[in-house]
Amino acid sequence: MSWKQELEKVVGNARKAAAEAAQWPPDFKKKLLGDIASRIEKKSAWLIAENRKDLKAGKVAGLSSAMMDRLTLSEKRIHAMAEGVRAVARLKDPIGKVQAKWTRPNGLKLQKVTVPLGVILMIYESRPNVTVECAALCLKSSNVAILRGGREAMASNRALATIFKESFKRYGLSPFQVNLVTTTDYAALDFLLEQEGRIDLVIPRGGENLIRRVVERSRIPVVKHYQGICHVYVDKKADLGKAVAITLNAKLQRPGVCNAMETLLVHQAVAEKFLRMLSAPLQQGGCEVRGDVATRCLIPWAKRAKAGDYGHEFLEKILAVRVVKGLDQALAHIEAHGSRHTDAIVTEDKKAAGTFKAKVDSSSVMVNASTRFSDGFEYGFGAEIGISTDKIHARGPMGLEGLTSYKYIVEGNGHIRS
Amino acid sequence: MSWKQELEKVVGNARKAAAEAAQWPPDFKKKLLGDIASRIEKKSAWLIAENRKDLKAGKVAGLSSAMMDRLTLSEKRIHAMAEGVRAVARLKDPIGKVQAKWTRPNGLKLQKVTVPLGVILMIYESRPNVTVECAALCLKSSNVAILRGGREAMASNRALATIFKESFKRYGLSPFQVNLVTTTDYAALDFLLEQEGRIDLVIPRGGENLIRRVVERSRIPVVKHYQGICHVYVDKKADLGKAVAITLNAKLQRPGVCNAMETLLVHQAVAEKFLRMLSAPLQQGGCEVRGDVATRCLIPWAKRAKAGDYGHEFLEKILAVRVVKGLDQALAHIEAHGSRHTDAIVTEDKKAAGTFKAKVDSSSVMVNASTRFSDGFEYGFGAEIGISTDKIHARGPMGLEGLTSYKYIVEGNGHIRS
Repeated sequence: MSWKQELEKVVGNARKAAAEAAQWPPDFKKKLLGDIASRIEKKSAWLIAENRKDLKAGKVAGLSSAMMDRLTLSEKRIHAMAEGVRAVARLKDPIGKVQAKWTRPNGLKLQKVTVPLGVILMIYESRPNVTVECAALCLKSSNVAILRGGREAMASNRALATIFKESFKRYGLSPFQVNLVTTTDYAALDFLLEQEGRIDLVIPRGGENLIRRVVERSRIPVVKHYQGICHVYVDKKADLGKAVAITLNAKLQRPGVCNAMETLLVHQAVAEKFLRMLSAPLQQGGCEVRGDVATRCLIPWAKRAKAGDYGHEFLEKILAVRVVKGLDQALAHIEAHGSRHTDAIVTEDKKAAGTFKAKVDSSSVMVNASTRFSDGFEYGFGAEIGISTDKIHARGPMGLEGLTSYKYIVEGNGHIRS
Repeated sequence: MSWKQELEKVVGNARKAAAEAAQWPPDFKKKLLGDIASRIEKKSAWLIAENRKDLKAGKVAGLSSAMMDRLTLSEKRIHAMAEGVRAVARLKDPIGKVQAKWTRPNGLKLQKVTVPLGVILMIYESRPNVTVECAALCLKSSNVAILRGGREAMASNRALATIFKESFKRYGLSPFQVNLVTTTDYAALDFLLEQEGRIDLVIPRGGENLIRRVVERSRIPVVKHYQGICHVYVDKKADLGKAVAITLNAKLQRPGVCNAMETLLVHQAVAEKFLRMLSAPLQQGGCEVRGDVATRCLIPWAKRAKAGDYGHEFLEKILAVRVVKGLDQALAHIEAHGSRHTDAIVTEDKKAAGTFKAKVDSSSVMVNASTRFSDGFEYGFGAEIGISTDKIHARGPMGLEGLTSYKYIVEGNGHIRS
């Protein structure tokens, strides 16, 4: 079968599978996910063997050690994947929830009830655990997943897909409940992005270039995440102890993720004291600082910030620092250079915090807390399919709720419109 | 100024205007909309004079009488427009609503608060009242509107935009709160559709070709409405009196709108009795019937349904009719030919109604009520910006809530992530 025939078959059958999944009762989904979790653990030796094929190919292809690490499956990681599926199984079922219920003056009874989206195309890169996470979240929300993972993890993903399909077979379900795209050609991706009306949502995860390409070509709605250019603003009335802790945490705890801070803004009135407090621990943490003139006076080892450093997503131990005249300049800086992802203020001044909360147009606005908290698990959603930098459909950390839509159910007694 | 310079200016200033609008208190918006309503009424003579220019040009261009009627402004219609603005002013303010509020075990306090989307591009056709409706809904939801109306209504729309801007001036607001695109070139539209990151949402209203073109070219999220192919299924256990009333209402009360019925499905067990009851009133109503063999036996004057008649949006007094073996066949027909807009069952059987409600994947599912009720006003939203056939963001009738997003506000006390 050519890739086109194969994909045509997947897309054609996905919709039928979605109609089936929409009718699953909550308890059934729990059982199904429990079964998948057990199978993953039972087959760990085989999974590791299949994963070796990817690792071998990755070595030949010269993948970086970070990529190789992300690709690697171990007993421990497989157990964690299975536990992740069990955690999703335990979440509150998002489907069939009556969001609102009202009766019109003419007696018509209305309900707004959550329903699955239908068929979701996930595009992502190397980590095989993403395959399991996405499949579990789609099953829990009664959606059909079409998973287009990276070439690097193909053998691991195929093995995982086989395990899902064994479980579907056991329960008499369509094998098309979860679908792995085995062609990584861009032509195949483009074909999928044209399946408007048959695929309901596209969620690309990965590098910005990939995501831009998807947005450009997709006729299907896309929920996406471009960049996390997160700011921390240390206000005149900040508790500087908290500010140091939050700065270090936001920058250094895990610099490679989207909710890590990229730029620090400091009120000029506290700049001297604060930056002197911060200098040593930043240096000890191995962090490069790129600052404006004032910053370089106070942190002598800091480099000069170039224009492009503000608004840049470093994703490593590099921090841009700017001393600002006050809250207004900080707000203007965030508006000009931010990506509307997550921004924080450190202040004990309720008025300043109030202005910041009202004026910063980001999916998450933090007061006296690290930007690193911007995360579905930290927010208590119990799961995360991604973080949306869109304002449409889902914004910010996106859990099971982001994988649902709703319908209106209208009950009358022969009502006609006059 | 070239159109490109003009649009660049609009888009560049729209974002600043949006930041301004996001801070408006609810009472201010009420006052502003009240002022706009009064100005529209005060300037009715001028509006009618400007509208004459469109009518004159329309006559030369040979617009149909239906189009000319939709384009025409009269004292009465202008008063209705102003009343429409007052009705929007009275609606509950959709911004700053705390949708959820919770505290995490670590003490972090979270709130999910509604915010405006930002800048909304509306694309629509001839009726000038749409200009007023869209502007009012965007102002009430603190969004900036970029309005790209039809060429036919340009003079009327310019006059209305002038009235808005007078009101903005009086209140010291940015003139870019509502923006009329005065170029109807497709190149100008394409330019706007590329303004990702500067425009937050596109809502096209109009013919399917226009909408498909927008979806194909837009890099900005689009909420849209393709077709309303609405079905009524008359079940074996239907109250046939109700079924006749609902059928006539759904097809004939206003055939040219998206929530009118296009196809009638009848259970074979009641087909004879029901279609004989329906035949005379349908004929009296001037409705053409296109049926399958069984239908043509029972309604002798019916024409033969061709394959393309099922799933066709007639938007006129033409009804496709099919006799089905039962509920399952009706569901399969709707799945195959429907557009997931609005579908209705007529039945006194709770079990059949339950199955229909659960299995029909449409934005509105009706039981014993006419499809014509699928409408923002009928649902009690007090306004309608459109009806979405998407499952993403907003589905079905879309009121003020559909013009909002949300942000998470997270308050800690120096919280850092471990």
